[in-house]
Amino acid sequence: MTSKEQIIPARNRPLIFNAFEMTGVGYYAHGTWTHPRSHREGFTDLSFWLDRARQFEEGLFDAVFFADVLGVYDIYRRSPDPAIRSAVDFPLLDPVTVIPAMAAVTRHLGFAVTVSTTYEHPFAHARRFASLDHLTGGRIGWNVVTSYLPNAARNFGLSEMPGHAVRYARAEEFLEVSYKLWEGSWLDDAVLYDKDNTVYADPAKVRRIDHHGQLFDVQGPSLVPPSRQRTPVIYQAGASERGRAFAGRHAEAVFVNGTNPGALTAAITAIRDAAEAAGRRRDDLRVVTDLSVVIGRTEEEARRKADLVRRSQSVEGALAGFGGASGIDLSTASGKERLSPAPGEHSQSEAARFTREKQTPDRVDDVVRRLTDLSPYSETLIGTPAQIADGISRIADTTGVDGFNLHEFVTPDDFTEFIESVVPILQRRGLYRTAYEPGSHRHRLLGAGDRVADTHPAAAFREVSA
Amino acid sequence: MTSKEQIIPARNRPLIFNAFEMTGVGYYAHGTWTHPRSHREGFTDLSFWLDRARQFEEGLFDAVFFADVLGVYDIYRRSPDPAIRSAVDFPLLDPVTVIPAMAAVTRHLGFAVTVSTTYEHPFAHARRFASLDHLTGGRIGWNVVTSYLPNAARNFGLSEMPGHAVRYARAEEFLEVSYKLWEGSWLDDAVLYDKDNTVYADPAKVRRIDHHGQLFDVQGPSLVPPSRQRTPVIYQAGASERGRAFAGRHAEAVFVNGTNPGALTAAITAIRDAAEAAGRRRDDLRVVTDLSVVIGRTEEEARRKADLVRRSQSVEGALAGFGGASGIDLSTASGKERLSPAPGEHSQSEAARFTREKQTPDRVDDVVRRLTDLSPYSETLIGTPAQIADGISRIADTTGVDGFNLHEFVTPDDFTEFIESVVPILQRRGLYRTAYEPGSHRHRLLGAGDRVADTHPAAAFREVSA
Repeated sequence: MTSKEQIIPARNRPLIFNAFEMTGVGYYAHGTWTHPRSHREGFTDLSFWLDRARQFEEGLFDAVFFADVLGVYDIYRRSPDPAIRSAVDFPLLDPVTVIPAMAAVTRHLGFAVTVSTTYEHPFAHARRFASLDHLTGGRIGWNVVTSYLPNAARNFGLSEMPGHAVRYARAEEFLEVSYKLWEGSWLDDAVLYDKDNTVYADPAKVRRIDHHGQLFDVQGPSLVPPSRQRTPVIYQAGASERGRAFAGRHAEAVFVNGTNPGALTAAITAIRDAAEAAGRRRDDLRVVTDLSVVIGRTEEEARRKADLVRRSQSVEGALAGFGGASGIDLSTASGKERLSPAPGEHSQSEAARFTREKQTPDRVDDVVRRLTDLSPYSETLIGTPAQIADGISRIADTTGVDGFNLHEFVTPDDFTEFIESVVPILQRRGLYRTAYEPGSHRHRLLGAGDRVADTHPAAAFREVSA
Repeated sequence: MTSKEQIIPARNRPLIFNAFEMTGVGYYAHGTWTHPRSHREGFTDLSFWLDRARQFEEGLFDAVFFADVLGVYDIYRRSPDPAIRSAVDFPLLDPVTVIPAMAAVTRHLGFAVTVSTTYEHPFAHARRFASLDHLTGGRIGWNVVTSYLPNAARNFGLSEMPGHAVRYARAEEFLEVSYKLWEGSWLDDAVLYDKDNTVYADPAKVRRIDHHGQLFDVQGPSLVPPSRQRTPVIYQAGASERGRAFAGRHAEAVFVNGTNPGALTAAITAIRDAAEAAGRRRDDLRVVTDLSVVIGRTEEEARRKADLVRRSQSVEGALAGFGGASGIDLSTASGKERLSPAPGEHSQSEAARFTREKQTPDRVDDVVRRLTDLSPYSETLIGTPAQIADGISRIADTTGVDGFNLHEFVTPDDFTEFIESVVPILQRRGLYRTAYEPGSHRHRLLGAGDRVADTHPAAAFREVSA
């Protein structure tokens, strides 16, 4: 063991590593699909997703995380054209449709997928996710979002985006209905499958939920028998005050971000405080942050590769993405103007974090320069495999973050290189699993059972046999 | 060639054979999951569906057809208990979730899946099916239904089932929105994937749909680039007058039923008349009917097997199923009472057809006896493989039906036996394909292109480059 490795404190568990994905051409860093070595053109083919699934499982990733949006970014230049041209989070297949196929060629990989509570109905959604939990053998997670795009609202018949408070009130009741269907409708011992007496399930143990709330009336029973996890692992990315309270109450894995350790540490503390305020334990949830890497055999090679990535990024794409996520149109702002933090509607977006983290408003030209740097919203590590591993250790040690959502600039090379060169180093340091432990996604993530913890709000809706 | 085979007239194409499925324990004939040789207990496992997919493709079936309902049958005895106990179309996973996995282990098999226009939103639905069309390589079909179950309505916040006319008006506009998203939002040559100039798609060729109708306002553009078929193959089962007009206008494959050739022939003629009345050609659609088989090496063995199937059926299940599909609670009717045809809300259901086909209302005890016979709603052929093949030929010749939705009593034996013993006979007679011809589901079904015919209403929303 080198002296460098000795300074890494022992952890009681490996870090979490998820692969970040989107079901389209574009990706986290806008424009990098144009990189000469990037291959995302096959995203409409099943084989693309089967290959990704196999790669992620070979890499022993905890899960693949699918981000999603339900509209096109049309703030920058008041037009969708820049986003369409540069493929900024557009196009996007329905991410739910790739998961069953990816599950068919893997055994352990988890699946965390973004679905908005603003546009789905909880009965259909709860059925879909209960089905996915069965078919994946307890490997499904749900990233709960409330959506923020005006175009998404107009795709679903709303003339404007519902306000932040309205969306979160709907999300709360949506989750309550879902929990009732997942946890409370079928008792654990309801299914008998008794051929001799023609009793599939004991009707006394399959119950209507009879939910009558402010927004939803749902009778039930759930159409799906209990799955391994029942409630999928709940992911959330609550950056606003309201979002953080929501995440503190419901989330089992939370995305927080920050381009400096201080902001990240503060965000992690705030989210654990929120969990505690909601009557949960501080370690009832895991906190992960976004991370990009550029790996070279030498520092020099890594820097050259980073330059190539930088050149593949799209300025127009970055501005379109910032506009969509922040609501701010930089095409009409002059360079020396100062930028205010984004309005409340966008407060959970990365662009909002980007502006909020600054103590004082930025000048527009600073923002534009920053946006066109490598991965402006999250940390990017550039270096040799050992340097990347050191950087990962450092972030974990200095912030207490539980793990990372790993991004690519170049598909699929970045993950391949990470798996081949960085993972072995992290494994030697005890920071990365060396094999999948058996169990559900929740079990692996939280180190406890397959079902939600007793402190989780879903547990309140459990029904048990007398 | 035997003299018996000589009487079969030459057809210009093989018959259509779909495998009927439901994502649950129960199935078409209620209670047969209790048959000693039936194995549907694995329906929550992905491996069950992968095995089915491989079997269906080995059998050269055109497609697997997934029926679906969104609630539990609670008419009989005014309770869901009989349906829960006997597993009558309950439980049911979301059928969409098994398709991508089944697509991953097949290359040719089509997928026709039931989705109700009453409870989904067209933007989310159109995106989901465009994604499925991509991932399956143009193998997706959509069975359009408007739902008829009161419990389904109460699962989605409606105190009662919307009326027939309201549901069909919604279905019409739902389809219009979907067609605009599938056919009209992206031009064929919109996608450039030009890395050098950072142009994924030409913004001038990706268009908002700006739909403003009675029920839906949808801006667009579609989030999904054009797939092989664009619009999925439209399936429908319109038995009511309104349903038949709807099917005549939109459907490319129609389910009609009848337990006697006269009723079936009349229904087929009526549906082709409806297509013609809608400005389409009489052969712009294919008509298929339900069929069950019990196959023995001898007639005697087939009869013994049929008796065993009959004993595995559930009387309570049959009454629960009839109640759900017809709205008629036979628990409170006396044996000598006469049964009126079902009210309009249920007019597209099988139970409604069952009562409507009778010239005079049945006595309740006749109905009950009939319901507990083998497969009361459709034809069941019992005999040796040659006799089954003869029966299939006879139905096709006397009614002009284009093909069959094949049902099992015993999973997976019935399909295995059909594929091993009946298919070769049908192949020798030119009534069954001997290999998959390449192409999309639509191409194989209709013998034309991948896209909807010019006479189809979706074609009106095509956009072409200037």
